[in-house]
Formats: sequence, structure tokens, C-alpha cells
Amino acid sequence: MTEPSRDQSAPLDTRARLRIFGVRGLPEIEPGADLAGLILAAGGEHGFQDGDVLVVAQKAVSKAEGRLVDLRTIEPSPFAHTIAEAHQRDPRHIEVILGESRRIVRMDRGVLICETRHGFICANAGVDLSNVPGDFNACLLPIDPDASAAGLRRALQEQAGASVAVIISDTFGRPWREGVVNVAIGVSGLEPLETYIGKLDPYGYELHTTVIAPADELASATELVMGKLCQVPAAIVRGFAYQPAAGSALALVRAPGMDLFR
Amino acid sequence: MTEPSRDQSAPLDTRARLRIFGVRGLPEIEPGADLAGLILAAGGEHGFQDGDVLVVAQKAVSKAEGRLVDLRTIEPSPFAHTIAEAHQRDPRHIEVILGESRRIVRMDRGVLICETRHGFICANAGVDLSNVPGDFNACLLPIDPDASAAGLRRALQEQAGASVAVIISDTFGRPWREGVVNVAIGVSGLEPLETYIGKLDPYGYELHTTVIAPADELASATELVMGKLCQVPAAIVRGFAYQPAAGSALALVRAPGMDLFR
Repeated sequence: MTEPSRDQSAPLDTRARLRIFGVRGLPEIEPGADLAGLILAAGGEHGFQDGDVLVVAQKAVSKAEGRLVDLRTIEPSPFAHTIAEAHQRDPRHIEVILGESRRIVRMDRGVLICETRHGFICANAGVDLSNVPGDFNACLLPIDPDASAAGLRRALQEQAGASVAVIISDTFGRPWREGVVNVAIGVSGLEPLETYIGKLDPYGYELHTTVIAPADELASATELVMGKLCQVPAAIVRGFAYQPAAGSALALVRAPGMDLFR
Repeated sequence: MTEPSRDQSAPLDTRARLRIFGVRGLPEIEPGADLAGLILAAGGEHGFQDGDVLVVAQKAVSKAEGRLVDLRTIEPSPFAHTIAEAHQRDPRHIEVILGESRRIVRMDRGVLICETRHGFICANAGVDLSNVPGDFNACLLPIDPDASAAGLRRALQEQAGASVAVIISDTFGRPWREGVVNVAIGVSGLEPLETYIGKLDPYGYELHTTVIAPADELASATELVMGKLCQVPAAIVRGFAYQPAAGSALALVRAPGMDLFR
């Protein structure tokens, strides 16, 4: 079972107030870019403090890591052609999606819900055509988003001397509910889950099932200042009390045997 | 199609900074309590400003509305007994859950995923035994959470002269991901969805599918200061730019015909 990630002994004051700053003014992110350096340069007015949580949109990370594919170089398989025809999609886009998937969860009405190589379940295996430079470019998820987060965390420590946690976020749809929300696909520096199992409520009732996902809630909170047109690809959360830990977004992936909706 | 809820013409500054205050020091909420008055009294130091979003935990609302059931008064049906035996549950709790449900979505490993009378899909139809006074009390969702939100919004306008939006939140699990997150089950004063469909990204690519659910993200953001032990049942979000609108959390419920996971 995951250990609590928030410092339960912290006075209530430290939890009851949160500030979220968007990091504005980042330039177009080129493959190979020093993303931590660019964020530090752009986020200057707020700087970083120990204990901050930096949330970075997946697309900025993927661009810096060169996870772009020119669709004109893609030779779709017969299966990709079949799917594309059935769902009025670009067969080259489908081919890239299949290459990023280890399982198709649902395929209906033009929507492909895929399990990515990491284990995340999302539309199109996270392969996106929007907010990408060039007419034919598709953007893939980072190969290892936890490693991306850890790299940013290390770089911020080295370049700014600040001990922060880092979350890589992406917008995912949900069954049963309209609209996408930002969730964590990479985590470094905090536990993404916090358990209340075994804790007593104020009436003495022992909680049996409550595990919260603060990493996803932190990602969602920052979407409110990011927007989807990529003006603000990073944000800083200040005032969230947590105990530093290695962390991994894979803790957010429900094991197949425990999942009622595969 | 839902209209954008954020003011797209607002200068970026107003979106790029958010503050979240927990409303602490609320007393035990009794049936019939003036919840708006209690929140105003407790949230005094921050007050309310026009444009704030108040998020209130469902349990506080349900208590004020008297949505508590003494399980000792419940006579379980034969079906409730059968389910309870198969899943090692209290048959009276099961009976109350069934009474709040219009459909069972999944029933496995002691977990009941139900569609509530409102259309929300969540564990136990939202019927909870934790954070409730008395040994035998179960807490139900509000009968009409949108109306609960609208009532609080009106009361805050009358008692404090502030035009705020109100969200009633509850923690819901998600398929495929571990941990629950706070989502909106009642909304008044803003559109819960924001569409980017038809908008152009900075590269001129037209977005075809992106609809965000800021009401859920606002609910998630405030969970970070609320905690699950009910110390902080309400929080104020300041700095989120939105266009006032009637709003309804039912816009967040995906129509059955559009849902791939029913």
C-alpha cells in the first residue's frame, strides 16, 4: 500500500492555502531544448521555492525530447488502412497510434481508446496532431514520462537550487463524463497516491477504501491556468504540503486484474 | 454545443494566477443548518469577491439538507441480502444504495458501481458511511445537487453581496486509474464544460475534439486543501476567469448513446 504523501503532521495552515502560477512566455520548444532552463528563464518573476510542484504539459516535454513524427514518412499497414476507412481517419495517424499501443480497449465512432506502452488508457494512445509545428507532424507521448519528470527535477535542483516535485500532465477523457481533464502521466518527487485507509474520521469511523490521487488533482488544478492553445505549457503549485518521495505515475495505473472496465 | 465558459478575451494575466483558500473552522453541520451563513462566518478572513468559485464538499451539503439515514430503520430486501452475502457487505447499506440507484453498472469484488438517480456513475451510488455522526448513519447525495449549488449561490449573493459560482463536489473513482479525485456533482454560476472545437492552435490547426471540464478540475483543485477527514469542507478559488452562466452538472454526464463504457 502506498504511504501518505502529504505531511499529515503539518499544521492545517500549510494545506489550506494554495497558489498556482502559470509560466508564461516560453518560446517554441525545439527538439533538444533545455526545457528546465527555458522554464526557469520564463518563470522568473515567481522563481522556485523548495516544496513547489512544477506541472509541465506533455506536449512541451515531447517536443523537447524530439517525439515528433512526420506523417509523410509513415507507411500504413493494411490494418491501419482498414481502421482508417471504417472511421474516416488518416491511415498514417492510425499507424502511428497503433505503434504506440499495446492494446486497443475500444474502437467505435471514430474514437480509438488505447492502452499505451506505459499502461495508460487514453484516446489515440496520446498521439496528437494539434499544437504541433509543421503540417504533417504528430506528437507522441514521452517514452518514459517518469524519467522526463525526474530529469526536469534534477535540472531545477542544479540550475536553481530548488527542491521541487515535477509532474508531466496530459488531458485524458473519462468514461461516463463529458470533457477531458488534465492528469499526471509522469511523476517525480512525490507519491501520486495518498491513502487514508485505516485512518479514523472525526466520528471514529475507520476509513476502508479511501485512496486519493493528488498527482492527478495537481495536474487538473494547473490546467485551469494553462489552457489548451499552448500559451502556458507549465505551472507552479505553491503551498501543497507533501513528503518528498521518488514517486512514479505508474502507481496511478490500475492493475488489469483489479480493473472492472477493461 | 456548449459555449466557452472562460472569458477568452480576458488578458492572459487573469488566467495565469489562481489562489485557493480552504474554509476552516466550520462547526458540525446539522440538518437545516444555514450552510451559506456558516461558510461566510468561517471564511471571514478571505471574504468573497465577485468571480470567486466556491466549492463545497457534498457531505456538508447533504448534512445540511438532512440526507442522513439511520441504517437501523432499514429493512433490506431479499436482493439486498443476496448481494450483501456475496460481497461481505451490510445488507442495510446495500438496500440504501439500491434505493439511490437507477442502474447497476458493475458489481464485483465487493464494489458496486451504480448509476445514481441523477445519472452520475460512482461507487455505492454515493452513499457513504464515513464522516457521518452516529454509529448507524449513512449519508446520501443531495436530491438535486444543482439546486443545492444554486441555493448557496443565491444565499451568498443575499448575505454577502458577492456574485460567485458554486460547485458541489464529491470524490469519485475512475476506471483504469488508481485513487479517487474530486469532481463536480452540482454546479451553479458557470458552464462546467469549455469547448475549443473549431478554434485554431498557434500553428493554424483546427481543434476538432477538445472539450475541457473545468468544473471537475476546479473540484479536484480544491480537494488539495480539503482533505478527506472533513476538516475543510469548503474552499474558495480566486482568479479563475469564467463567464457567468446558469450552469448544471448534468452537462458533465455523458449521454448513454455516446458512452463506450456502459
